[in-house]
Amino acid sequence: MSQQAVNGVSHRGKVLTLDSMNPNVKRVEYAVRGPIVQRAVQIEKELKEGVKKPFTEVIKANIGDAHAMGQKPITFLRQVLALCSYPELLEDNMFPEDAKKRARRILESCGGHSIGAYSASQGIECIRQDVARYIERRDGGIPSSPDNIYLSTGASDAIVTMLKLLVCGEGRSRTGVMISIPQYPLYSAALADLGAVQISYYLDEDKCWSLDVAELRRALNAARQHCNPRVLCIINPGNPTGQVQSRQCIEDVIRFAKEEHLFLMADEVYQDNVYAEGCKFHSFKKVLFEMGPEYSSTVEMASFHSTSKCYMGECGFRGGYMEVINMDPEVKAQLTKLVSVRLCPPVPGQALLDLVVNPPQPDEPSYTTFMKERTAVLAALAEKARLTEETFNTVPGITCNPVQGAMYTFPRITLPQKAIDKAKEEGQVPDMYYCMRLLEEEGICLVPGSGFGQREGTFHFRLVH
Amino acid sequence: MSQQAVNGVSHRGKVLTLDSMNPNVKRVEYAVRGPIVQRAVQIEKELKEGVKKPFTEVIKANIGDAHAMGQKPITFLRQVLALCSYPELLEDNMFPEDAKKRARRILESCGGHSIGAYSASQGIECIRQDVARYIERRDGGIPSSPDNIYLSTGASDAIVTMLKLLVCGEGRSRTGVMISIPQYPLYSAALADLGAVQISYYLDEDKCWSLDVAELRRALNAARQHCNPRVLCIINPGNPTGQVQSRQCIEDVIRFAKEEHLFLMADEVYQDNVYAEGCKFHSFKKVLFEMGPEYSSTVEMASFHSTSKCYMGECGFRGGYMEVINMDPEVKAQLTKLVSVRLCPPVPGQALLDLVVNPPQPDEPSYTTFMKERTAVLAALAEKARLTEETFNTVPGITCNPVQGAMYTFPRITLPQKAIDKAKEEGQVPDMYYCMRLLEEEGICLVPGSGFGQREGTFHFRLVH
Repeated sequence: MSQQAVNGVSHRGKVLTLDSMNPNVKRVEYAVRGPIVQRAVQIEKELKEGVKKPFTEVIKANIGDAHAMGQKPITFLRQVLALCSYPELLEDNMFPEDAKKRARRILESCGGHSIGAYSASQGIECIRQDVARYIERRDGGIPSSPDNIYLSTGASDAIVTMLKLLVCGEGRSRTGVMISIPQYPLYSAALADLGAVQISYYLDEDKCWSLDVAELRRALNAARQHCNPRVLCIINPGNPTGQVQSRQCIEDVIRFAKEEHLFLMADEVYQDNVYAEGCKFHSFKKVLFEMGPEYSSTVEMASFHSTSKCYMGECGFRGGYMEVINMDPEVKAQLTKLVSVRLCPPVPGQALLDLVVNPPQPDEPSYTTFMKERTAVLAALAEKARLTEETFNTVPGITCNPVQGAMYTFPRITLPQKAIDKAKEEGQVPDMYYCMRLLEEEGICLVPGSGFGQREGTFHFRLVH
Repeated sequence: MSQQAVNGVSHRGKVLTLDSMNPNVKRVEYAVRGPIVQRAVQIEKELKEGVKKPFTEVIKANIGDAHAMGQKPITFLRQVLALCSYPELLEDNMFPEDAKKRARRILESCGGHSIGAYSASQGIECIRQDVARYIERRDGGIPSSPDNIYLSTGASDAIVTMLKLLVCGEGRSRTGVMISIPQYPLYSAALADLGAVQISYYLDEDKCWSLDVAELRRALNAARQHCNPRVLCIINPGNPTGQVQSRQCIEDVIRFAKEEHLFLMADEVYQDNVYAEGCKFHSFKKVLFEMGPEYSSTVEMASFHSTSKCYMGECGFRGGYMEVINMDPEVKAQLTKLVSVRLCPPVPGQALLDLVVNPPQPDEPSYTTFMKERTAVLAALAEKARLTEETFNTVPGITCNPVQGAMYTFPRITLPQKAIDKAKEEGQVPDMYYCMRLLEEEGICLVPGSGFGQREGTFHFRLVH
């Protein structure tokens, strides 16, 4: 039923219907909070109402939400946030001096000394300075400028903003964006919303989900037939696949981006979540600069970080930042204008980010507790990664790559033909069918591999540690 | 220079340039944080560096940012936020019992009892329940369902999301959105970004910026020639114009929306900021329901509120909500899916909103202080409104309507022909030229009327109280 038809009839229907709404929004899919999670919430309500099930609670392993899974907040972070929220506490003796010092510094940089004031749209200046210094330390002294830092409402916000800047053209000139398969579905959702063309490149499951430049090239050449590829998105450490890219691989990717004239987007929100021996996080920026001025002065890049993962797991605060490199100054002015329309990222999230990039130092009173808590969280995540991998690999029909980093396992499942047929009968993708059965029978909520993308004929699920 | 040209040359330019970026983003304008504010920030830096100016500090009256203007946060709100941030404080005797009770309730509704967990994408359920009950109290018992409440990252976020759902079609079928002139520039910015058609209707400055349905009809009929008008946006109390709509006017608007098959968007973020005698805030929802089932069961509407204005002024927390009425259930499912991609609004902002809709009650220990602080803030805002209006009307060349509500004055200025000519010489809009001079010479930062829109040949500025 077309909109005209709706408008034409004498007893008119609704203004806004499935037929007359934004078609791009209809194409958006986001499995991490999709039908399976909605069913899980329903089951939780049924359990509360006394409905009998083969289990007493739903285990939600669908989303990387550390605190919801029982991880405790880091004391220092929360002390400073409480001080910023209610500065009368600065007079109290219960808080350590370094927490008070951080809170005072943040408050002094806020309008009217209140985190209730709007900040600059790009983020509070002294926090952007701290972020820049953090990046410099991380990357062995490669310079970072606060002018290139944009604080954001979680990493998702910055990723979508960056994609929005990049999308243009119609038909065969429409912007194409390369994303990995499997991918984190924010990317496919944002591309659908923006009406951009998704270019899928496959990670190699047989080689521990590694990325191969030959596959990038195959995907790019195929895409050139129907769109204008301009952007290459990388998630490292990988979500949902948990691989950690080698330095060599990153170098190859950067070389490819330069050769093919692509804008690089490096999603590095799991940069502190690296567990496997012999694996190390290398930032794209560091590798870029180590490749010399031919690369470091030309390749355009944005890199993303967040307060939601790593040892903090403070998802609810929606803190994050991006660093832009080699961005055209006129485009940067447009970016600054664009983010100003939403006024500013949440200031408590900005304050939290400041603590993450400027944690207690060895000579400060909170250092020992902070390090103890941080180490314990990261050790627990590493142990869970090891345990999950080990356990899955003992289960017939499940095979699982080593989990090198991030917070997920993405095992492959072999489904019996009977199950595949049954799923088809019910009009469901087989791995969705599998996950739905697991939820109904065992109370375990996972996201099927089809929500992230996978090679045709293979089935997976994502489990959060 | 086309993108092809950039790509074609042997020494390639940047991937992302002004010529090859999203053209919709280039069309976005947001004067509230535009060039004049950027210059103000520069001047502040110059003052810090010791540059001599005819003033010692910049007075920023460009944005409704109460705390930055010296307004103190409400004690109760901040106590609960501190308790939520650092629940160890629940053991402390310094906090009143009602603050602790609120904090416990919020924490219990959070995953892992932490505001660091993601919430449901629509917002925490018990907070949506509190919002629904608040709306019912406000509207004299007209029912409100938590299922129709969507918490948001400030009102801006919800407004943009709602517009995004509504935009579709190409060419003459492209969605048209009616907005007032003068308007709050979030609307024009969002429409540019979404590639929707802006339909301007003018408020009547001679009748205290009131809205006339005949003018709505004129604008609508003119627009029907080139687009598909589907949405009518109203800001009440008005921003930047400060008028408060009469009950009769709201009824006329609702009747018009029904007749013309328009989706209503009611921006009611200043609902507690009503000062003028004889003026009262009427919510669009209440009037809609009082008009009987012919209206209350058909007219589709979304209404927006925020924690940034009223007596709270907590802009930095980015809290807000929208209530949708008569929305097609299939569209609502799409809306829920769309907001899930960004995971959730900031949880501290959600907590803050909960306190705003569920404030201390007369039998609770924080009530007296809360009411005293709230009354003092609102009285100060009313006094500033009165004073500004009075003062402006004594200045030759400035005329100013009574400020009935909101937080702004939008006086009209008569510019001497010499100033207009000079502005044209410098390639500036005359009121931008005026505001720039005022900033350079007096250190006062205002937003020119051209940033909000005004009738051709008239000039204004917006001043924040």
